[in-house]
Amino acid sequence: MLQETGSGRFCGREHTLPLRIYCEDTDFSGVVYHGNYVRYLERGRSDFVRELGVGLSVLLALEQPATFMVSRLDMRFLRPARIDDRLEVRTRAELASGARLMFRQTITRGDELLLEAVSENVCIKLDGRPRRLPQMMVERLAPYLAESLPSERREDFAVAPVVEGEMTGAA
Amino acid sequence: MLQETGSGRFCGREHTLPLRIYCEDTDFSGVVYHGNYVRYLERGRSDFVRELGVGLSVLLALEQPATFMVSRLDMRFLRPARIDDRLEVRTRAELASGARLMFRQTITRGDELLLEAVSENVCIKLDGRPRRLPQMMVERLAPYLAESLPSERREDFAVAPVVEGEMTGAA
Amino acid sequence: MLQETGSGRFCGREHTLPLRIYCEDTDFSGVVYHGNYVRYLERGRSDFVRELGVGLSVLLALEQPATFMVSRLDMRFLRPARIDDRLEVRTRAELASGARLMFRQTITRGDELLLEAVSENVCIKLDGRPRRLPQMMVERLAPYLAESLPSERREDFAVAPVVEGEMTGAA
Amino acid sequence: MLQETGSGRFCGREHTLPLRIYCEDTDFSGVVYHGNYVRYLERGRSDFVRELGVGLSVLLALEQPATFMVSRLDMRFLRPARIDDRLEVRTRAELASGARLMFRQTITRGDELLLEAVSENVCIKLDGRPRRLPQMMVERLAPYLAESLPSERREDFAVAPVVEGEMTGAA
Repeated sequence: MLQETGSGRFCGREHTLPLRIYCEDTDFSGVVYHGNYVRYLERGRSDFVRELGVGLSVLLALEQPATFMVSRLDMRFLRPARIDDRLEVRTRAELASGARLMFRQTITRGDELLLEAVSENVCIKLDGRPRRLPQMMVERLAPYLAESLPSERREDFAVAPVVEGEMTGAA
Repeated sequence: MLQETGSGRFCGREHTLPLRIYCEDTDFSGVVYHGNYVRYLERGRSDFVRELGVGLSVLLALEQPATFMVSRLDMRFLRPARIDDRLEVRTRAELASGARLMFRQTITRGDELLLEAVSENVCIKLDGRPRRLPQMMVERLAPYLAESLPSERREDFAVAPVVEGEMTGAA
Repeated sequence: MLQETGSGRFCGREHTLPLRIYCEDTDFSGVVYHGNYVRYLERGRSDFVRELGVGLSVLLALEQPATFMVSRLDMRFLRPARIDDRLEVRTRAELASGARLMFRQTITRGDELLLEAVSENVCIKLDGRPRRLPQMMVERLAPYLAESLPSERREDFAVAPVVEGEMTGAA
Repeated sequence: MLQETGSGRFCGREHTLPLRIYCEDTDFSGVVYHGNYVRYLERGRSDFVRELGVGLSVLLALEQPATFMVSRLDMRFLRPARIDDRLEVRTRAELASGARLMFRQTITRGDELLLEAVSENVCIKLDGRPRRLPQMMVERLAPYLAESLPSERREDFAVAPVVEGEMTGAA
């Protein structure tokens, strides 16, 4: 059912997707394997657009089918998650312009911030070449975009600045 | 066997790990799922340190066991990989200081650059708290570090600058 | 919170866990990668025991910590799942005896049966050696076990018989 | 390059693929996550057929493109694998008939047997419907098939019999 809504919910501009940590998510160090957070971030973005009625199934069913590739992903890992944890993936769309769609996301456990991420996603045709975002998608995204866009591209990828020495000082 | 060497090889400062793309690596869009590159990058870093005799097994067997967590990962995806592709993960250590170890990596297919990544890894005790890099590790890493270190932390995470509009112009 | 309930629900003896198929779950053939069903089955079993108050976190917090290893898994794949599908993992405990816990599971999409599986799980100590199921676990499982147990071990693993030639006849 | 050979090698009928265990492969219990063995088994089968010149890329490039789905997988897990382990996936084709291709596989670490598996794979068209194995594939497989085929389908899935109580006796 193409118009089906996602598993998460919006609160204002922010979409929240709850998820549970299972055995499959952890590694031998006892915490969640860092690579798995990429999957959770993608689940959050997928649900965000599905909730707006422009999920992957809908885009593939367009007269000119579209999909997305991730062109940039910058993640900062702050605290580990563990087996049985209940986390929330929080997703905001920052920019929708040309072929590009940028998201700012966090993963939290209750009040704790575990991860911050910024991603750039490029809309592509099925042959892999970039194409403009479908007009329908631009319209549905508009109310959810950040009001003041970053003026400089490099800034797009600034996750919270790292305080020099904060990690090393404790050693 | 703790001193076992890795599967890749060094050429000067750069370590190269070959890998094959299997069905498990791809997604429904026909190319490698973007989250899986995080696994390949980690394989490259693991083999890099294993080859130097300071792999995960060795660090866990120290009198004061150590392991690593990834604290930052910035990836730029340039071209997709496909089923049966043979790729190479190229890994350079950029900085080893205090508890921090930074790597710059690329993933290539023949002459094609598929991905660039910069990662920051923090050495931790088994209780998850940061600790200085083991002295033995610092010594073995020394010959492989970049000669001129970045002077400013923010720059550490600059992967190749994105030319504004290069992706969007084609749409 | 150790006594937290799971994400699914029981209907009689059967536990049902809903799940969503994301990009990460698919492979280049366009459907869910067969290896990923193993993860869904484990999520179903994890939620089953968590709902009974004997989840992995609880077992690890026992005076004599316990965990599980899968010793046998037999799966029959009947129909493929696709991106955005909503599936249900249906789990029944069949036997709890000594160190062994056996489950019979299906994965469905609406009325369609996609997969059948039987698994044997062995309770182990943290050193990897088998141990009896914790008494608390046996008691909580009792109301959920099959009334008539299979009398012969080999039968435990009979998933629905395959009709000879049903697959080959269509070629 | 479609005719490229695989990463493993044949010794008689048996194909052996070496692999390394990385952090991504383990779970919080300290050993390899059971679901990941499915990926290793698939890598072994993929390399087996690639080495014969009938890998996935070749089959997709046929005039009548073909691929495979796994229709049955029965695994018995005997011993755990750990971080940094070097394993071998050993693969034998047992039967190639109609649309079906059956394999018997083991995963070993040196002399230790870690896992036994039997799988049934069905050749399908791109629309998901079964089709006969491509004639070229049947011919290339012929020298590698078991000489005496199991006479009864059910037996196909008998991995080594489980000695009743062997796991439970130790508790």
